[in-house]
Amino acid sequence: MSDRMGEFDLIARYFTRPAKRAVLGVGDDCALLQPAPGMQMAISSDMLVEGRHFFAGVTPFTLGHKALAVNLSDLAACGATPTAFTLALALPRVDEAWLQGFSSGLWALADAHGCELIGGDTTQGPLNICITVFGEVPRGQALLRSGAQADDDIYISGTPGDARLALDALRGTLALPTELLAQARARLEQPSPRVALGQALRGIATAAIDISDGLAGDLGHVLEASGVGARIDPEIATNLIAGCAHAAAAAGLFPYEKLLEYVFAGGDDYELAFTAPPAARQAVDAASRKSQTQVTRIGSIEKAPGLRLVDAQGRSVTQTFQSFDHFA
Amino acid sequence: MSDRMGEFDLIARYFTRPAKRAVLGVGDDCALLQPAPGMQMAISSDMLVEGRHFFAGVTPFTLGHKALAVNLSDLAACGATPTAFTLALALPRVDEAWLQGFSSGLWALADAHGCELIGGDTTQGPLNICITVFGEVPRGQALLRSGAQADDDIYISGTPGDARLALDALRGTLALPTELLAQARARLEQPSPRVALGQALRGIATAAIDISDGLAGDLGHVLEASGVGARIDPEIATNLIAGCAHAAAAAGLFPYEKLLEYVFAGGDDYELAFTAPPAARQAVDAASRKSQTQVTRIGSIEKAPGLRLVDAQGRSVTQTFQSFDHFA
Repeated sequence: MSDRMGEFDLIARYFTRPAKRAVLGVGDDCALLQPAPGMQMAISSDMLVEGRHFFAGVTPFTLGHKALAVNLSDLAACGATPTAFTLALALPRVDEAWLQGFSSGLWALADAHGCELIGGDTTQGPLNICITVFGEVPRGQALLRSGAQADDDIYISGTPGDARLALDALRGTLALPTELLAQARARLEQPSPRVALGQALRGIATAAIDISDGLAGDLGHVLEASGVGARIDPEIATNLIAGCAHAAAAAGLFPYEKLLEYVFAGGDDYELAFTAPPAARQAVDAASRKSQTQVTRIGSIEKAPGLRLVDAQGRSVTQTFQSFDHFA
Repeated sequence: MSDRMGEFDLIARYFTRPAKRAVLGVGDDCALLQPAPGMQMAISSDMLVEGRHFFAGVTPFTLGHKALAVNLSDLAACGATPTAFTLALALPRVDEAWLQGFSSGLWALADAHGCELIGGDTTQGPLNICITVFGEVPRGQALLRSGAQADDDIYISGTPGDARLALDALRGTLALPTELLAQARARLEQPSPRVALGQALRGIATAAIDISDGLAGDLGHVLEASGVGARIDPEIATNLIAGCAHAAAAAGLFPYEKLLEYVFAGGDDYELAFTAPPAARQAVDAASRKSQTQVTRIGSIEKAPGLRLVDAQGRSVTQTFQSFDHFA
C-alpha cells in the first residue's frame, strides 16, 4: 500500500465512519445536516499550516487533537454544542503511520464531544489541515463579541500564557524544568476547548471570545465590537491564574514583566474570555463548577474605550502588547 | 500597505460584506445560519492546491471563480440551492493585486448564485484555498449517488472532455487553434456549476454525481453506490456531445480513441452525470430547458455490475479508463 494507496482508499480507511446524527455523512457529493427545531447552526473554519501553527515534527496524534480543538474552541466561544465537522487535508505523501496517529487524535477529541466527521477532501500538497466545524445553539442565544456593557465583570478561563511559555521553551529561548515543560507543552499541543463552559454561560455571559491570538488582542475585539473599554488588574490576572507561566515566574525563570506578556499576549491559549454583570457572579461560579473549568475574574468593562492595566493601588501599568497576526 | 497589511485588515478589505441571509456573517467566532423550515443543509468542502488543481501563474480572477465553482458543483449534484460558504486561505505573501483579482472572481460567481461568504480564515503558507459551501434542499429530496435502478437512462450535462483538452494544450502535448483553445480553456478555468439543472432534477433524477475525476470513474461511484452496472454507446457519447474535444477530433487533431478518453476520463469537467427512468424523458428535457443546460442521454443502467461500452451494432468497445486520483 503506502505510496500507492489512493485517495478513496485513504478516505475509507482513516476518515469514514457511519453517520449517527447527520442525515448523510462521508461518501456522497454533499453531507446533509438537519438542525433540531428552534436551533441555529454555528459554523467556523480554521486552517493549520506546518511551520506556522505547528512544528514540522509534531506528534501526529497531538496534531489531530489540536486541529479539531482550535475549531471547537470557536464553537465554545459562541456557546454552541458541537455536532459535526468536515476535514480537508493536503498531504505531501501518504504516510500510514502519520495518518493512523493523526486520525486517532482527531477521533479521540471528536468522540469526547460527540462531534462527527461528515465529509471533506484529501489531496497532495504541502501539509495543510482545514477543518470546518458545526454546532447548534438555541435561536438568539449564541454568545457574541458585541454584548459587553459598562460595569460588567471580565473573566478568563484556565491558564492563558502556558502555550506561549511552551513555545518559547521548544524554540530554545527559555529553559524549563522537565515536568513544567511537559505540562506547558500539553497546553500548547493539546488545548482543551472550553465547550462545556461556553454552553453553561448561555444566558449568563454578555459577550465571549476565544483566545487564540493573545488575551489583550482578542479582548480588544470584544471591546471594539461592544463599543466599550476595560480596566484590568494585572496583579490579579498574574497571581490568580496559577498556571505554568506563573510557576515559572515564581521559580525566577524570568522577570514579572515577562509574566504579564505571557498572560496578556501569549496566543494559542484557546481559553474563553467573557463578560457578565456583577449580579451574575454566582451564576458564573455555578457555570464554572458545572463545566469543571477554572474561571478567574480579572477586571471590569468601562465606558471609555481602550484596555487599561491598573493595579490595586490605582497605579497605571504601562505595557504594550502585540496581538499575534499572521501577516504582521 | 502591501506586505504590512495585517490579517484583520485583509479580511475586512477583501472578504467582508454585510450578511444578508445569514443570521450572523464574518466577524465573530462563528457564523450563524438558520435553515428555512423543512429544509436540510447540504455541505461540501474542497481544497485547491497550487500546481495540482491549478497552474502557478493562473489569473487570480479565474482562480477565485473556480475555487467556488468546484464547491457549488457538489451542491448541484445534490440538487441543493446554495446559500453560503466559508473561505480558508493560505497565502505565501500579501499581494493586493492578486487578492483584488481573486476576490472579484469569487464574488462574481457567489453573487450569481446568491451565495454569501459567512466566515473563514487567512494565514501565511503555501497557496491553498479551502472552501466549505452550504446549500438547502427540501427534506428527503437531495439527489444521492445510490438511487440508480436497472433500465434508468444515463445522462450527462454539457461537454465533458473540454477541460482536459485545454489542460493538454496548456501543457504543450497538443496544439489547438487559438479560438478552440480559448473556448476549451474557459471550460477548464471557469467551469459553470450546474446548480440550476441540479435543482430542476429534484424529484426526477434517481441518482446524480458531479464529474470532477472523469465520467467513467465518477459514474462508477454511482454504479457502486446503487449496486448496478451501465451500458453506454460510445458513439452517441462522442458524437452528440459537440464540445471542443469533439471539434478537435473532427479537425483530425487526434484519433477517435483519444476522443473517447477525453469524454470518459477527462476530469475537471464539473458537469453532472445523472440517471432517470425512461418515463421521465420529457421531464428531463423540461429540466434541461428550464435550466438552459444541454443534456445528453448516453446509455442505460443495467443489473449486471460494471461499465460497458457497446456500440449501436452491439459490439463491445474495449477501453480502460483511469480515474483521476490525487495519490495514485
